Amino acid sequence: MDKAMHDKGLAVRRAVLGEAYVNNAMKNVDDFNQPMQDLLNEYCWGTVWGREGLPRKTRSMLNLAMISILNRPHELRVHIKGALTNGVTRDEIREIFMQVAIYAGVPAGVDSFRIAREVFAELDKG
Amino acid sequence: MDKAMHDKGLAVRRAVLGEAYVNNAMKNVDDFNQPMQDLLNEYCWGTVWGREGLPRKTRSMLNLAMISILNRPHELRVHIKGALTNGVTRDEIREIFMQVAIYAGVPAGVDSFRIAREVFAELDKG
Amino acid sequence: MDKAMHDKGLAVRRAVLGEAYVNNAMKNVDDFNQPMQDLLNEYCWGTVWGREGLPRKTRSMLNLAMISILNRPHELRVHIKGALTNGVTRDEIREIFMQVAIYAGVPAGVDSFRIAREVFAELDKG
Amino acid sequence: MDKAMHDKGLAVRRAVLGEAYVNNAMKNVDDFNQPMQDLLNEYCWGTVWGREGLPRKTRSMLNLAMISILNRPHELRVHIKGALTNGVTRDEIREIFMQVAIYAGVPAGVDSFRIAREVFAELDKG
Amino acid sequence: MDKAMHDKGLAVRRAVLGEAYVNNAMKNVDDFNQPMQDLLNEYCWGTVWGREGLPRKTRSMLNLAMISILNRPHELRVHIKGALTNGVTRDEIREIFMQVAIYAGVPAGVDSFRIAREVFAELDKG
Amino acid sequence: MDKAMHDKGLAVRRAVLGEAYVNNAMKNVDDFNQPMQDLLNEYCWGTVWGREGLPRKTRSMLNLAMISILNRPHELRVHIKGALTNGVTRDEIREIFMQVAIYAGVPAGVDSFRIAREVFAELDKG
Repeated sequence: MDKAMHDKGLAVRRAVLGEAYVNNAMKNVDDFNQPMQDLLNEYCWGTVWGREGLPRKTRSMLNLAMISILNRPHELRVHIKGALTNGVTRDEIREIFMQVAIYAGVPAGVDSFRIAREVFAELDKG
Repeated sequence: MDKAMHDKGLAVRRAVLGEAYVNNAMKNVDDFNQPMQDLLNEYCWGTVWGREGLPRKTRSMLNLAMISILNRPHELRVHIKGALTNGVTRDEIREIFMQVAIYAGVPAGVDSFRIAREVFAELDKG
Repeated sequence: MDKAMHDKGLAVRRAVLGEAYVNNAMKNVDDFNQPMQDLLNEYCWGTVWGREGLPRKTRSMLNLAMISILNRPHELRVHIKGALTNGVTRDEIREIFMQVAIYAGVPAGVDSFRIAREVFAELDKG
Repeated sequence: MDKAMHDKGLAVRRAVLGEAYVNNAMKNVDDFNQPMQDLLNEYCWGTVWGREGLPRKTRSMLNLAMISILNRPHELRVHIKGALTNGVTRDEIREIFMQVAIYAGVPAGVDSFRIAREVFAELDKG
Repeated sequence: MDKAMHDKGLAVRRAVLGEAYVNNAMKNVDDFNQPMQDLLNEYCWGTVWGREGLPRKTRSMLNLAMISILNRPHELRVHIKGALTNGVTRDEIREIFMQVAIYAGVPAGVDSFRIAREVFAELDKG
Repeated sequence: MDKAMHDKGLAVRRAVLGEAYVNNAMKNVDDFNQPMQDLLNEYCWGTVWGREGLPRKTRSMLNLAMISILNRPHELRVHIKGALTNGVTRDEIREIFMQVAIYAGVPAGVDSFRIAREVFAELDKG
């Protein structure tokens, strides 16, 4: 493991997904999932998210489109919140999911709108 | 058909994919694919690409990520060229496909890099 | 928006998915999802479902196969009910999902059978 | 192997995909792919296509939608020809692929239209 | 139906997925899903799982990777338990899902790790 | 970059995919794809393939099943050759792709058999 890259990635992850979420993930680390969490921190959040070639806001927008198509609702919820943190507005999220509906089909769009509305409702309740 | 939306869409499509490409598509319209071309122009290029909520450059970036994951090489080539037209740089395309490699897997990333390099080589040859 | 096509689509949608379902969807329209609902009504239900080239029963059968493969359980439930409304029998639904099992794999088939049985049980309870 | 079901399946396969195509597939059977060809004949063409619950024309229509989404161009070509044999018209094929474009996204629709046009051109050349 | 193959398959299925699970599946057989259960027992569990070319442990490992990518959580839970029965260790399951994360993307890996931990917790509670 | 992990990964990659293939990939490195090649070497081949929890032969078997489902023919060809290098026999490849046919559907199986036969023919020609 590249410790510096791992720590850089963990810092990016905290900034995007929030202290509470990442602390919870780290608290649940055990022998089974430790190598996966290391991989996430080092490669996903360090080597890729940590690169300078795209602003975080753009990376979040790409993630919303990709994870919607990949059909992974748990991760989509997490990244909708992360996108808002990175400055993606609700109106922009709407545009992304309408584009998903055109390119990946109406059911992918409908599911993503429903999940976004649930996340917004949860956030608005505070 | 909403003629105004259709024509708006066709204009956006020409601006993004180029006169030559769209003229060729229109030249190949026959009884069989006319309704599909109408749908493309009105629905895809008018109703969604024609919306103001996201800059065309951002829509192109989303498309590269989505079409890479959807695994449609013909369309990916077309939209790599469109993305360059819309101001996405080659360096930004690299960033997008590295993010695809992390979120949709290494084979999706490798395929997309290969296709991008072929498109670039074709463009550089002039 | 092509208002006539939108209204035609909304009428088809009501006929297929039921008054109660569509009224609920329309009641939940807000600033965020309005453009997506318009898109659904105009293009999905108007421009495509509203075409005459295939009977609604056939369109429902295609949808069951497609949405099963696209792996979208919420939409599959909705369209199983719509298929019954359009005259697809339970025996025909079985045939469709067996064909899904062959062409898209056993897990897609097993999931679709389970969902269909849940929908039938809900309907039979009244 | 259930020899009767295998032979029934092989007969259905010949009727749908044509003598020439199936003879070629059978001629290419070797130690490596024999068990797969047996599986195809018995399981796919006997146990499912051989069932009476749906007319062959309907099964072909389902296959066009499914194989388009599964993104398998070789098989799509084969089944477009099979669909024509089973009485699906070119106009109905258009309707199916427009419905694919709405439910599975525009790139799946565009690819399927292009492949269908290539198959038609090949058939028209005779 | 090839009764001998069906019964062989049912025996393999019981050995891998457990008496309780299969008895429950068989108890829920009705007119609607009988042909699908027959298909599962004869082809999936008899014709393929019953073949001698790969040890059951290897087949279970392949299934974990495939079902994770196919994104079918119900089936993944069932086959994680089956894999443990077939001698796949928890450490090996970790390796498989890390390889999934690389080849099919991080969200597929994260979802599979979460599901595996839930299955392990359920088993450990007894 | 973790230089030691990168070099370990590159060595594993050479051992699995062959000197000629990897030398060619490295020769084609340019400013555009350098970071992707680094990611492949370090992350895919070092951090995951370099782990000790599974024998290389098992990792190759998993890859054949996964890449077949992910529908990436270029990568599938490369990994069929890699699998033979890692001791997977042609008979075992047949078993894997039959299992793919059951779990991911007949078209995925048929495509993979065709590609495997092409690779074998190329190798047999020498």
